[in-house]
Amino acid sequence: VNVHEARLFEVSVTSSELRPLSFGREGLRLLDQRLLPAREEWVVCADVAAVADAIRTMLVRGAPAIGVAAAYGMALAVRRQASIDDLRRAVHAAGETLRATRPTAVNLAWATREIEATVERLIVQGLAPAEIAERTAERAVAIHEADVSACRAIGRAGADLLPGDVVRGTRALLTHCNAGALATGGYGTALGVVRAAREAGGAVRVIACETRPFLQGARLTAWELSRDGISVTLITDNMAAHLMARGEIGAVVVGADRIARNGDVANKIGTYSHALAARAHDLPFVVAAPVSTLDPSCPDGRSIPIEERDAKEVLELAGHPIAPSGVPARHPAFDVTPAALVSAIVTERGVSRPPHSTALAAILG
Amino acid sequence: VNVHEARLFEVSVTSSELRPLSFGREGLRLLDQRLLPAREEWVVCADVAAVADAIRTMLVRGAPAIGVAAAYGMALAVRRQASIDDLRRAVHAAGETLRATRPTAVNLAWATREIEATVERLIVQGLAPAEIAERTAERAVAIHEADVSACRAIGRAGADLLPGDVVRGTRALLTHCNAGALATGGYGTALGVVRAAREAGGAVRVIACETRPFLQGARLTAWELSRDGISVTLITDNMAAHLMARGEIGAVVVGADRIARNGDVANKIGTYSHALAARAHDLPFVVAAPVSTLDPSCPDGRSIPIEERDAKEVLELAGHPIAPSGVPARHPAFDVTPAALVSAIVTERGVSRPPHSTALAAILG
Repeated sequence: VNVHEARLFEVSVTSSELRPLSFGREGLRLLDQRLLPAREEWVVCADVAAVADAIRTMLVRGAPAIGVAAAYGMALAVRRQASIDDLRRAVHAAGETLRATRPTAVNLAWATREIEATVERLIVQGLAPAEIAERTAERAVAIHEADVSACRAIGRAGADLLPGDVVRGTRALLTHCNAGALATGGYGTALGVVRAAREAGGAVRVIACETRPFLQGARLTAWELSRDGISVTLITDNMAAHLMARGEIGAVVVGADRIARNGDVANKIGTYSHALAARAHDLPFVVAAPVSTLDPSCPDGRSIPIEERDAKEVLELAGHPIAPSGVPARHPAFDVTPAALVSAIVTERGVSRPPHSTALAAILG
Repeated sequence: VNVHEARLFEVSVTSSELRPLSFGREGLRLLDQRLLPAREEWVVCADVAAVADAIRTMLVRGAPAIGVAAAYGMALAVRRQASIDDLRRAVHAAGETLRATRPTAVNLAWATREIEATVERLIVQGLAPAEIAERTAERAVAIHEADVSACRAIGRAGADLLPGDVVRGTRALLTHCNAGALATGGYGTALGVVRAAREAGGAVRVIACETRPFLQGARLTAWELSRDGISVTLITDNMAAHLMARGEIGAVVVGADRIARNGDVANKIGTYSHALAARAHDLPFVVAAPVSTLDPSCPDGRSIPIEERDAKEVLELAGHPIAPSGVPARHPAFDVTPAALVSAIVTERGVSRPPHSTALAAILG
């Protein structure tokens, strides 16, 4: 590598759009999000079991990103199958395995069923196993690209909803967890709104909630926004309402893991508190999510399964115990924000305003 | 030490009432609360500078406890003074030093001014410096004992306010930070309510919020409740509203650092979020605090100074960075819960119900 090439490479890396996953001959390459911001390490998953494990252990996380990862996992499952029967068995087993990893995000179920349907169609068309594998991989890549395009459309539509003082940067935009490039195929949903507003010339400043217990805000949102030169200030989750009371926040924008038919939104634990505080301070509470996050089979939030993760993730931090040994803890990983607290749900096919049940039905067509 | 004695000692330690501070010839002994629950270490402060440092660095914390510690610090300042002039200078300098340590808790100002007035009275009575020092120490001990008595009275009055399902333990009592024995002279305010309810035969179960960034809930509340055999479950601060929505919580009980004349309550950052969530779920939000926490000079919450601590305390955990280097953070250590969200303020002189301005005026008499 000569100096000229090294410089070119450096420029292309620093200016490139961040994507947390890519697919190639060797398998699915994933940025290990558990190690950020301390280390930027990529892991290659060569089979569906490795992808399932990566989703379960939150090496990759964020509803749209795990949907894309699952699509690639399905594509890996249909590779190198000797017969159509083997291929059909493999694709269904892979769907079951992947759907069992995490219960709340619906994009995971959506993406795996989408690939199952694709494979079934290709089988009916009489294609050979190798051809089916190739076309399935193409379909997974298309799901990935569609996710990035959806994020860009969501970003533009969401940016239009931001109050003027947030666009000018006189009041901050509050976000929770990481609904950024790292949580999607790239660009992000909530952080896509921030990026689009900046691309349109705005001076949006972000206040990122650290997001206990996994610290996705401190580790991931702070990292990807800093990387893109976007102003970000970190707070603990419990400071949000105080800063709203002080007039420092102008809007709340978050992602979603599943949205029920009536507009109830499941998202990272702590979202609901921010929605209550936003309402108390008369601030817009905006949910940015692709259509694949909408679940028409859920009438309302009560039917969304909430994942309870290992209490150890609450009791320890970076391997250090933070509580006396023997004390139990709870770890619901998501909560439900009632539709009544949601000012707008921004999708790539349009914006849902209250009453969300009607607006979402129109978006779902 | 023979075996019999060792056993007796063990019994007396485990069954003894926890007090985070004691005063003796060598100075003020403080339990280092920064090291709990990993280590139980006592530190001796031999002069007022050491006491001020202990308060500033949160070796001792909790509004009533820092009030008591400051009273003892004042008592140390008047020791071994050669003349009345020296003694007067020392007591005023000590008051200034201690009041400058932390701005939000009013008990600190109250206790130091109380000792200043005591010393002035003793000087007017014509006592010698050594006698004044002795009487001042007695006054500091009396402030400590009065604080413990106040906690017991608050506990009894607060226990009477708990809903039946919380007393029976079918729904949990949520608390934030540590308003326990460790935060007071002993027994606690919010946790005094829990202790009194248990002493009266109740089966109160506590859900403790970890309380970022200092983790007083995870480290201190979990520790002192476990020590007393009281059921405690840890959650991250952002899980409280979700558990309320699921019907798992029956009441919120917290302490206070300063209460304005109209009933606005300054308490550990995050308290306000819990108050908003409690209101949204129609749950009692109870503040337990001694009269020394009431500040008649503050008309409302806007006039309560909110301490902003070092951002490093948010950016690091147990010495480990949790965010990318260079990212800024905020660290308001307290927030203000408006009186309108407070169901009851329980003091040792009675319970204030809305409208709090009238009720608190009566309590202050």
